[in-house]
Amino acid sequence: MAEQLFTYQQLYSFTHTIFTKMGCSATDAALATKVLLSADIRGIDSHGVARLSGYLRLWEANRINATPIMKVIHETPSTAVVDGDAGLGLVVAPFAMNIAVEKAKNVGTGWVSVKNSNHFGIAGYHAMMALEQDMIGISMTNASALVAPTFSNEKMLGTNPIAVAIPAGNQPPFVADFATTTAANGKLEILQRKNEEAPIGWVQDKEGATSTDANILKKGGALLPLGSDRAHGSHKGYALGSIVDIFSAVLSGASYGPWAPPFPAYVPLPLNMPGEGLGHFFGAMRIDAFRSAEEFKSNMDNWITRFREAKPIDGYEKVLIPGDPEREFEVYRMAHGIPIVESVVNDLIAVGEKMGVNLYE
Amino acid sequence: MAEQLFTYQQLYSFTHTIFTKMGCSATDAALATKVLLSADIRGIDSHGVARLSGYLRLWEANRINATPIMKVIHETPSTAVVDGDAGLGLVVAPFAMNIAVEKAKNVGTGWVSVKNSNHFGIAGYHAMMALEQDMIGISMTNASALVAPTFSNEKMLGTNPIAVAIPAGNQPPFVADFATTTAANGKLEILQRKNEEAPIGWVQDKEGATSTDANILKKGGALLPLGSDRAHGSHKGYALGSIVDIFSAVLSGASYGPWAPPFPAYVPLPLNMPGEGLGHFFGAMRIDAFRSAEEFKSNMDNWITRFREAKPIDGYEKVLIPGDPEREFEVYRMAHGIPIVESVVNDLIAVGEKMGVNLYE
Repeated sequence: MAEQLFTYQQLYSFTHTIFTKMGCSATDAALATKVLLSADIRGIDSHGVARLSGYLRLWEANRINATPIMKVIHETPSTAVVDGDAGLGLVVAPFAMNIAVEKAKNVGTGWVSVKNSNHFGIAGYHAMMALEQDMIGISMTNASALVAPTFSNEKMLGTNPIAVAIPAGNQPPFVADFATTTAANGKLEILQRKNEEAPIGWVQDKEGATSTDANILKKGGALLPLGSDRAHGSHKGYALGSIVDIFSAVLSGASYGPWAPPFPAYVPLPLNMPGEGLGHFFGAMRIDAFRSAEEFKSNMDNWITRFREAKPIDGYEKVLIPGDPEREFEVYRMAHGIPIVESVVNDLIAVGEKMGVNLYE
Repeated sequence: MAEQLFTYQQLYSFTHTIFTKMGCSATDAALATKVLLSADIRGIDSHGVARLSGYLRLWEANRINATPIMKVIHETPSTAVVDGDAGLGLVVAPFAMNIAVEKAKNVGTGWVSVKNSNHFGIAGYHAMMALEQDMIGISMTNASALVAPTFSNEKMLGTNPIAVAIPAGNQPPFVADFATTTAANGKLEILQRKNEEAPIGWVQDKEGATSTDANILKKGGALLPLGSDRAHGSHKGYALGSIVDIFSAVLSGASYGPWAPPFPAYVPLPLNMPGEGLGHFFGAMRIDAFRSAEEFKSNMDNWITRFREAKPIDGYEKVLIPGDPEREFEVYRMAHGIPIVESVVNDLIAVGEKMGVNLYE
């Protein structure tokens, strides 16, 4: 698979200009760009500039509002519901997470459910916003239905990711960020580009039978919940994805389950949507609302060190802490550039031509 | 496997007397019995009276305090840390969950981390306490290390369950309650009693190789995180189990990771424990801190109905909602009795003899 290397600055400048041309304010364009590119930097290639053309098409279809008036429509000292006014999730999510952080400053924790939003990039970005405040950050979102519940061959849930970021002291933070499916859709897309088969347990065909066809979603198939099958706990992955859906969309009044709005703009919106747009859910917990932040972070350093020292299985180098792989990507890519696969480069060139922006300038 | 049928009342009376003879107050004995038996009623046989002898041995070893003075040692409007004073987790957990519920009444949500506790029965019981208040309940606990992180052959985490209970309107509530491993230890115990092999992906041997030996934990093996192996997302199960460990034990000052105190009293306490006892974490979120409870519950009814109607794969009757199987057990067992396997019956008889109580009276 041919790739081209870009510097962060090149991609930043291009993406920022596209968002600006869509009508975003300079502040919103900067924020949306930063959130989107945090995926490319951290090695989650499916969620970065690869999605820029998708956002653009949603905006063209009037499903994304470039100048949203986001507001809190309900609140208590520790909670809020935000109406994202159909804005870019990349902008709506940090707005909501900031409210969670402010509430945590006041009463120990803050919890914000969001409706009427769109795809928010990587969940980890928003959760990590809490870290610099010595808070634990939590972030999740529902998404268009690609996943079949245990025993079903109907797509009812999105890949509904969960991110949890926990500060440490001398050690880097613990940052888990994962889809509640066995494999995220992005992993399947990589196999499609390479023309390779998927491992058993990632997907099923339209009848619900095991499949290794990486293109099976286009043929009525579905992704499987974390656990793959009933014997290996798929009912747990199904429950996790459901919890994300309910916290993000039922608590806020967004559209849930099979009615979640699809990311591809060419897919019509579901009929009889029970709520508005996509939903997210954010949490911030102040460490010192539980115990001294210093003590906690010293214990986290001990936790992380002990887990790093866990005996590796022969043939494996070491045990990883959630967040390690993404940090390694970040260091490497900021120094050596971000590789973008040819198909995404062509996509970006087309986006640039449509909006009058040169990718290489 | 031979079984004997008991009525709820028989088991209640026996268990209550045992807890009373251990020195629990009448109120605590009643609560501990109710929590413990909620497992037997709901079909989670590994967490009910099957554990009574284990609690007794911990009490004999002075690791359980039958008359704890539980107290809040740190708090904010939405958070608290509880010191369980080495009490029965069956009593400490409802105490802490009640605090979470009270805080939610005041500021929308309540979050309580607990140290210096013991095994708390099924996580679902405590989460469900929130339901009657029109709140979402969350419950989790760490546990003695039986689980190897991805790439490791060292046991570092417990089966660390998560329960989330969400109220509905006319439909029964959504109640997820699951270990963050591919299979809970109780499922392995069932195979051991039947002398059957475990499916591939549940356990590994002491070198970290796949195993189907249901007795492998006694030979240095380990349970696997939800996902089973790296290709199927075991790093996600490992992250989930870690989050439960950190919220329950690092936030509270309990003993975490491989230092969590073991349930079997004959296993010595780990050296250099970094905290006190087991840890739990509880949350309560008032529905109307987000939106009208009536609207939410009507949406939940719609969610549940829609998921029940999801197309089943040929050969499967229907799609289940988390909590359905346990509710079916509850209805059946309250009407027809609770089957207890012979080995557990013998265990209970021995407990009775030691404490001067007749199981059959």
